[in-house]
Amino acid sequence: MKFSILGATGYTGEELLRILANHPQAQVQYLTSENQTGAPIAQTYPHLTQFYHDTMISIKEVEHIASSSDVVFACLPHGHAMAIGEQVTRAGARLIDMGADYRFADTSVYEQWYKLKHVHANSQAVYGLTELRREQVKSARIVANPGCYTTASILALTPLVQNDLVDRRTLIVDAKSGVSGAGRKAETMYLICEAFENVQAYGIANHRHTPEIEQALSAAAGEAITINFTPHLIPMPRGILATCYASLNSGVTAEQVDQAFQKAYGGEYFIRLLGRGGYPATKNTRGSNFCDIAWHIDARTNRVIVVSALDNLVKGAAGQAVQNMNVMFGIDEKAGLNQAPLYP
Amino acid sequence: MKFSILGATGYTGEELLRILANHPQAQVQYLTSENQTGAPIAQTYPHLTQFYHDTMISIKEVEHIASSSDVVFACLPHGHAMAIGEQVTRAGARLIDMGADYRFADTSVYEQWYKLKHVHANSQAVYGLTELRREQVKSARIVANPGCYTTASILALTPLVQNDLVDRRTLIVDAKSGVSGAGRKAETMYLICEAFENVQAYGIANHRHTPEIEQALSAAAGEAITINFTPHLIPMPRGILATCYASLNSGVTAEQVDQAFQKAYGGEYFIRLLGRGGYPATKNTRGSNFCDIAWHIDARTNRVIVVSALDNLVKGAAGQAVQNMNVMFGIDEKAGLNQAPLYP
Amino acid sequence: MKFSILGATGYTGEELLRILANHPQAQVQYLTSENQTGAPIAQTYPHLTQFYHDTMISIKEVEHIASSSDVVFACLPHGHAMAIGEQVTRAGARLIDMGADYRFADTSVYEQWYKLKHVHANSQAVYGLTELRREQVKSARIVANPGCYTTASILALTPLVQNDLVDRRTLIVDAKSGVSGAGRKAETMYLICEAFENVQAYGIANHRHTPEIEQALSAAAGEAITINFTPHLIPMPRGILATCYASLNSGVTAEQVDQAFQKAYGGEYFIRLLGRGGYPATKNTRGSNFCDIAWHIDARTNRVIVVSALDNLVKGAAGQAVQNMNVMFGIDEKAGLNQAPLYP
Amino acid sequence: MKFSILGATGYTGEELLRILANHPQAQVQYLTSENQTGAPIAQTYPHLTQFYHDTMISIKEVEHIASSSDVVFACLPHGHAMAIGEQVTRAGARLIDMGADYRFADTSVYEQWYKLKHVHANSQAVYGLTELRREQVKSARIVANPGCYTTASILALTPLVQNDLVDRRTLIVDAKSGVSGAGRKAETMYLICEAFENVQAYGIANHRHTPEIEQALSAAAGEAITINFTPHLIPMPRGILATCYASLNSGVTAEQVDQAFQKAYGGEYFIRLLGRGGYPATKNTRGSNFCDIAWHIDARTNRVIVVSALDNLVKGAAGQAVQNMNVMFGIDEKAGLNQAPLYP
Repeated sequence: MKFSILGATGYTGEELLRILANHPQAQVQYLTSENQTGAPIAQTYPHLTQFYHDTMISIKEVEHIASSSDVVFACLPHGHAMAIGEQVTRAGARLIDMGADYRFADTSVYEQWYKLKHVHANSQAVYGLTELRREQVKSARIVANPGCYTTASILALTPLVQNDLVDRRTLIVDAKSGVSGAGRKAETMYLICEAFENVQAYGIANHRHTPEIEQALSAAAGEAITINFTPHLIPMPRGILATCYASLNSGVTAEQVDQAFQKAYGGEYFIRLLGRGGYPATKNTRGSNFCDIAWHIDARTNRVIVVSALDNLVKGAAGQAVQNMNVMFGIDEKAGLNQAPLYP
Repeated sequence: MKFSILGATGYTGEELLRILANHPQAQVQYLTSENQTGAPIAQTYPHLTQFYHDTMISIKEVEHIASSSDVVFACLPHGHAMAIGEQVTRAGARLIDMGADYRFADTSVYEQWYKLKHVHANSQAVYGLTELRREQVKSARIVANPGCYTTASILALTPLVQNDLVDRRTLIVDAKSGVSGAGRKAETMYLICEAFENVQAYGIANHRHTPEIEQALSAAAGEAITINFTPHLIPMPRGILATCYASLNSGVTAEQVDQAFQKAYGGEYFIRLLGRGGYPATKNTRGSNFCDIAWHIDARTNRVIVVSALDNLVKGAAGQAVQNMNVMFGIDEKAGLNQAPLYP
Repeated sequence: MKFSILGATGYTGEELLRILANHPQAQVQYLTSENQTGAPIAQTYPHLTQFYHDTMISIKEVEHIASSSDVVFACLPHGHAMAIGEQVTRAGARLIDMGADYRFADTSVYEQWYKLKHVHANSQAVYGLTELRREQVKSARIVANPGCYTTASILALTPLVQNDLVDRRTLIVDAKSGVSGAGRKAETMYLICEAFENVQAYGIANHRHTPEIEQALSAAAGEAITINFTPHLIPMPRGILATCYASLNSGVTAEQVDQAFQKAYGGEYFIRLLGRGGYPATKNTRGSNFCDIAWHIDARTNRVIVVSALDNLVKGAAGQAVQNMNVMFGIDEKAGLNQAPLYP
Repeated sequence: MKFSILGATGYTGEELLRILANHPQAQVQYLTSENQTGAPIAQTYPHLTQFYHDTMISIKEVEHIASSSDVVFACLPHGHAMAIGEQVTRAGARLIDMGADYRFADTSVYEQWYKLKHVHANSQAVYGLTELRREQVKSARIVANPGCYTTASILALTPLVQNDLVDRRTLIVDAKSGVSGAGRKAETMYLICEAFENVQAYGIANHRHTPEIEQALSAAAGEAITINFTPHLIPMPRGILATCYASLNSGVTAEQVDQAFQKAYGGEYFIRLLGRGGYPATKNTRGSNFCDIAWHIDARTNRVIVVSALDNLVKGAAGQAVQNMNVMFGIDEKAGLNQAPLYP
């Protein structure tokens, strides 16, 4: 498999390179960067020395890139991937978009939250939350790779809404993320001096991952679901923890909750169920493609609290993209992804 | 004012010493430690060199300590303060307990959550959340200094329940705390190698600060309130951020919410209202006695989200204790507490 | 004392504001910022809310600022303070420059290392390492406040070179600094994601604090000294640790080394001698004006190793500036500076 | 290859498990733990769930363990490996000791620094700094895996002393280490609250890695070398940076220095030469087996400054052990070790 990356110098591009360096069947073809065209990738990321000797080219050559690649990863600001999606697939490559452009079945939702006209509405892109859409991913020409917060939230709540165990008006996701989720932006608020020994919320009631979570949960429930989603910035580079709240429907037992998770994920390699009463920790997933999930029942308030943990750059981005690539090309889903987490 | 500290070598004791070193009217009398009896405090905490030359004695001398002090701070594991409360007050000192022993009006709640028989039920202790109980604190012989999570949670939610703006069955507090909240315990999970680049929840549905928050909110509401409280460990020493959720009662407007906070805290020095749409950050309160509060209305879900931030060792412990001391002795409430936060 | 700050929005300006908020005799007059002219300082630094209500003006009004201030602090990029030094002092204010412009008695050294023509060579500025130049500081019209690395290095090595205890050709300073020393610059290398869990050297053999340290040590020794100075970036905001190496002169005893430090600093409040065999830790000085010093003799190699620790923004910048201000105006040298370090 | 680990629950044991999980030819046989005998390793280290299902046994079964293993890794406190070395090799396994017991050719040096009688003096163990002892490692029955500080220091300085480029009386190593180097000890000084935002030196002039570095440099030089070695604790889990100083011999040119490094390491995969003027960063090696090296010449002082960076748990411990294992068994030296560093 020959792969190329559009926008290789952000953290998502870099993480794809890290993971694919160990993939037994993937071969780099082209990397693009508009700021650093002509420079070797190892100049931007010296840690990749000995792994890649490639010099970056411009995305202007996307036609040529696509025609000589089996798969193209787009790590671009939103708005840019939908502009080249048709070109890439027409040239014969399959596209995995790390951004938001292809995530919404109803592109008017995209237009409303991203304030942009969608230019590739009939794309037939598949939403690539692998565990939930494996069959559709197999044959997709374009895969919309899910957001980091959304992967954590959707995996945590789907078994509950799908099995009608919770009151769908009561869903709240309180999420905590490492700063790499913001990308490699040289902005004051992400400086170590500012972000260190600090925690704060942001995007309350208006973060763009909200409609993405709602779309997936509504599909699972078979009816429209509206949620509260609150992201927080945690003083660390990697990791997302999602703490999810919902009121149990009348008469639902703890065992039914256990069974719902077991049925949904019991056979999944990359989802590790810690069971009822467990405590996922982001550190246990660092650098790996795992999503760890546990749940608690509070008898006093009749709520279920689900906690999920993952590495936002791996299962929340590049790892899931490689997982999708593996599914698309019919090879072992774990290929390139079976590294143990880095601890401590 | 002559003060003594029982249990001076924990973080709460240390923080009292740091703050009181700058108090214009407070004079240290005795410090106790059972492990380090006979050692100078600056041996345990070299940063206090030049400020304290005191050698620690044993709590066995509590009678003598109390009779020569105006105020005694108890920084002891729960169960220990209630055992000496009567002795201390009889000897003429006023007691400020940093632990849980005197926090519950109904001591059976204490007994149920702390699994201990309460031995000083008729203490007439006052719950010292200063802004809410200033009048009672003035004349109290024993002040139960609130917990760190509880101060952040109660300050955030009281204006809403007091003014009947929210559905009292829908309260959820999702709190994030620095590790110093766990005290100075040499346990594996608090090692830098373990806690670094990690976030996880703990004590879901059974943390002991839950009934303390419920007691205060129930009192404000005039009816019993049960909440969900979920604490999280954040990879940093200081700071608590509480993200609080509640469904608005029918017809409640954003302006009513604004007014409730303004009315409750508009005149308070140590509560800084960031207003509707603001984002408190724990770093902005580090080392200071401030609690920063903001709120958001989500029209899509009809929920109000209140966020509060404070330094768990200051407004969440030693700072509020000094604030209470100032109130008890009729001096300027800000004495010793008017340091600006340490940033960055 | 009425003070003004030119360039109030950097970390040095902010730290002056933090410290001076507690100074019993200092009153803010004007703050300048060229990016944020017209904005209140608490908008840039919300943690200063309740302490300053001032709106920033432009440095273009420096004449007016100086004529209505007793002391002006310049927190400006190098090259800018020397351009306004004469104006400030002529208008009647005394100037404390936090930058490098006035630090070199021989301005040709400045010109060589900073690649700038010096425009105020006859300034008669005094190098304000308070403990070493107290008498000259008293009457100075312009004080050049020392750099952070330099304060730590000069305080560590002066007793040794002054008393001819070490071979002056063997001095090496290996220094470790928190990232706030780089200022509040939104550059990629200072992002939390890049600086976290990382340590690296920079400026080897060419850092601009080198000639500043050499100037002071040469003056103390009475002959020209050339050193190696190697700074390192440590993943934390505050703190400098300087590990200094020198070969003992033949026959020098450990007791002579002890005496040299005792004689130099035994009476100094802000220098805490931990003695032979001690281990200064930056955390013990955080937020305070202390410099902690200890030394070790290695009999196997006949070297002395001196370790000094301080908070780069306090004793290494704003704290020492306030200390100098106190000396200049004949008030208690500790005024505003007697806060205990923030720990943990 | 069947491997077993004695003392699997420390960070070195854990790191061996992480690395070997991806080794194409290694199979776990037995893991031992004395505290947690009978427990599965994934209970101690949940991040290893899906990788190991093994239950730990006691080291008392070492005879059986060794007879059914090809290689045994000893991750034991010093003193324990030498007690079982003969038993292990007699039973047919080869031993890789992660501790200090077999590191000294002259066991009297061991006895002097470790205050223990050596009980296996005639072991013929090989000091396994792979790049320098590859040939001897091949046939070794016992490999003494080097310490973390020592690997960084020896690799940095060997080319200089071996080629007689520096004055051997002037060597100083100033090293900075993440806290995982201290192991998984629940001691107060390693708590996140204590170690965070702190840097300090320790073990000045008496750290046990000193004689180990001296032994290797003396061997390379062909004469006895005594050095200063100063370790520092950095607020992060992983990574060592060694900053090494030496005076150049008269007439030595920068090109000779360049050539010495090129000759020594130009063909080595795991040593990445950043060249003259480069800046190794620990983060660029995190989770990988690389050691990055650069050097600087200071013409003003005629010193060379060499900087090396590595991950103390990988090239400084478990990674180098696996590299040695690969060499011992004649397989690809990179097997299991070719993961790209984890960044950011």
